[in-house]
Amino acid sequence: MRPNPTSSRAPLARAEPQRFGGAGGATLARVADNGSAAARDRRGRVTLSDVAADAGLSITTVSRALAGYDDVAEATRVRVQQLAQRLGYRPSIRARHLAMGRQAALRCAVVSLGLSASRLPHSAYGPTLAGILAGAAAQGMDVQLAAMDSAHPAAELAGFVAEDRADGILVVAAGALRASDLQPLERAGTPYVLVNRHLGHEPGASPVHCVTPDWTGGTSDAVRRLHRLGHRRFAAIFPRDSAPSSTALDHERGWHDAVAALGLDPADTPIVHASGPLSETAGRDLARRLLTDGLPASGEPVTAIVAYNDHVAHGVLEAARELSVAVPDQLTVFGFDDSVSRYLWPAVCSYDPHFYATGERAALLLAGLLHGRPPGGDSPARVMLPLDHVCRASCAPPPHV
Amino acid sequence: MRPNPTSSRAPLARAEPQRFGGAGGATLARVADNGSAAARDRRGRVTLSDVAADAGLSITTVSRALAGYDDVAEATRVRVQQLAQRLGYRPSIRARHLAMGRQAALRCAVVSLGLSASRLPHSAYGPTLAGILAGAAAQGMDVQLAAMDSAHPAAELAGFVAEDRADGILVVAAGALRASDLQPLERAGTPYVLVNRHLGHEPGASPVHCVTPDWTGGTSDAVRRLHRLGHRRFAAIFPRDSAPSSTALDHERGWHDAVAALGLDPADTPIVHASGPLSETAGRDLARRLLTDGLPASGEPVTAIVAYNDHVAHGVLEAARELSVAVPDQLTVFGFDDSVSRYLWPAVCSYDPHFYATGERAALLLAGLLHGRPPGGDSPARVMLPLDHVCRASCAPPPHV
Repeated sequence: MRPNPTSSRAPLARAEPQRFGGAGGATLARVADNGSAAARDRRGRVTLSDVAADAGLSITTVSRALAGYDDVAEATRVRVQQLAQRLGYRPSIRARHLAMGRQAALRCAVVSLGLSASRLPHSAYGPTLAGILAGAAAQGMDVQLAAMDSAHPAAELAGFVAEDRADGILVVAAGALRASDLQPLERAGTPYVLVNRHLGHEPGASPVHCVTPDWTGGTSDAVRRLHRLGHRRFAAIFPRDSAPSSTALDHERGWHDAVAALGLDPADTPIVHASGPLSETAGRDLARRLLTDGLPASGEPVTAIVAYNDHVAHGVLEAARELSVAVPDQLTVFGFDDSVSRYLWPAVCSYDPHFYATGERAALLLAGLLHGRPPGGDSPARVMLPLDHVCRASCAPPPHV
Repeated sequence: MRPNPTSSRAPLARAEPQRFGGAGGATLARVADNGSAAARDRRGRVTLSDVAADAGLSITTVSRALAGYDDVAEATRVRVQQLAQRLGYRPSIRARHLAMGRQAALRCAVVSLGLSASRLPHSAYGPTLAGILAGAAAQGMDVQLAAMDSAHPAAELAGFVAEDRADGILVVAAGALRASDLQPLERAGTPYVLVNRHLGHEPGASPVHCVTPDWTGGTSDAVRRLHRLGHRRFAAIFPRDSAPSSTALDHERGWHDAVAALGLDPADTPIVHASGPLSETAGRDLARRLLTDGLPASGEPVTAIVAYNDHVAHGVLEAARELSVAVPDQLTVFGFDDSVSRYLWPAVCSYDPHFYATGERAALLLAGLLHGRPPGGDSPARVMLPLDHVCRASCAPPPHV
């Protein structure tokens, strides 16, 4: 069963407004003979809404009745079909495709583990979400959000998978993510892609598809930049080292790699960890201690602080301001994420992880999996996007150099 | 045709992982007798992916072949069905619903006019988008993004509507939006809701469904707050007054209403307009002029500036810093949007328009329309959400009071 070329011409002409006036006018004139509904119609075409209003039913019910679905009572179906005919309703291309079983849009779910929908825009996943929507749109894929903000998101994930509402899943997570959290997806065989997470630090975990900024490379770059500027004693403020995310572990690895490669003394370049969640406030407290007490090992003053993200950098600036430490003359500050660094004062040097592109690439990768185009043969894809350093007003050579 | 209760029990059990182990093991054992694909399967269940991999076809093709769609060649269909049977593939609940024509998810499109997908997260629509996704999820509605960033988005909109891919549309727009821009939606009879825009300022425009922060009320509140603090000469920096958005006009109305109600002299409380787009830079330039030259009418100094948004407030702070005008001791600064105001220094008082809630409400309203539950009888809903003042460090009584 193919659409009749003659009957499909008129709806297609809607793409050309200049030609529509005539066709629409003709339809209106025809509808005007049909009584009550016609008087209400001002659009030049009888729509599903009009039929629904006249029938006193929802658009969904009318649509399903016209498509012949068997969950609509027979009497209702007959009544709706007669009404549609009387009003001159002409089903659209999409409705015809639906009736032909051509509803082919793929559906992907953005599953956020441990992260409520309302927190999404205030996290790294704000721009990521827009990128996902853009990538999905480019692939004709619809998106549904499934925010699982409970203490046991993996159980929620199992429930979601059992409902079987998505062809594929993009997983975003607050904090750590372990292979066991993803068991429901593995069991169901649902194609999925991790966004800004990977399992590379988990011993024994099989590799899975993921798209993530190259936090390791970005952090190594920060150490090298500080070294080039002449800094020899500086610290990082990173999250606490229990239950760490792959992002935090990537940062740690990048730091240690560069410190070793440059032959710096680890006692002069420590990582200090927050004991609780790493917020702006925790960053301020840790920076205050570093600026007051100096390096934990020697008490020597630090000349630079690398913050885990721009919010922590904000806390570092506050500590410096309280203690009258001038940024950048006495202290260089680096942030990550390039989220709010430009609004701080002084504006902070940061690393742009291209969250939007990360989301977009993840959606494209998932669409490829759903279309049977796995990116690299049998092994899961691990896409790492390089970070870009954004230089602003918070860096300078160390004092007395 | 209803699903067989017996055959549907096993897939439902997937919601309970503790029971799954046994059932999965049994399936795995059965599959192991079936040759090549079984060795690859580690999940305890043969999935569509497995059938696709074995058939050398995409998941989409296999899914459509099994559902009996007529766009799959007959030979392929037979081959896929035989393969699926041989491997022990058991279609999921969703696949069965699909085959029964029960694919009932509503699809809504977020159409962004004059705003590219990559700009969305950096605009007011970042949190709005998350709210839309959350509201849509609550209503079982899938979301697709259609970014129309051309010079003629209305023509793009007509094309999009002709493709008929969405049951309903949420319209977000950069800058102005006129009734004529929405003609393609009116003609097609597609239910739609404007997000953060309304047509209330356009003479002759019929009202349409919209959800928007109450910019008028928020701006009046800013004027009243300044007045209560003792300020009598202060200015607003708003966008240029040609081609204005409803947001800009709401701000203007709120300003004029409060100035009139308080009996303030309009010459002492002017609105100054940017000649081009109102960016942080334009805000800085306009603030520099106000702080240098005083009020346009009298040359008297201003003691407060209300910025159109937090980015403009950032520019105002920069101008004050350059001119050594102390905030808040010599100048009070208010922003709008509560987007970056907390990161500025000093932290700026702003108005939270609850963009997330705006998006969520818009999605709920659209879902209601699609389900035949229009909110208020025949007249379109105009939902106005109140703004909340967020007090920070940038406000004080005027000097010499």
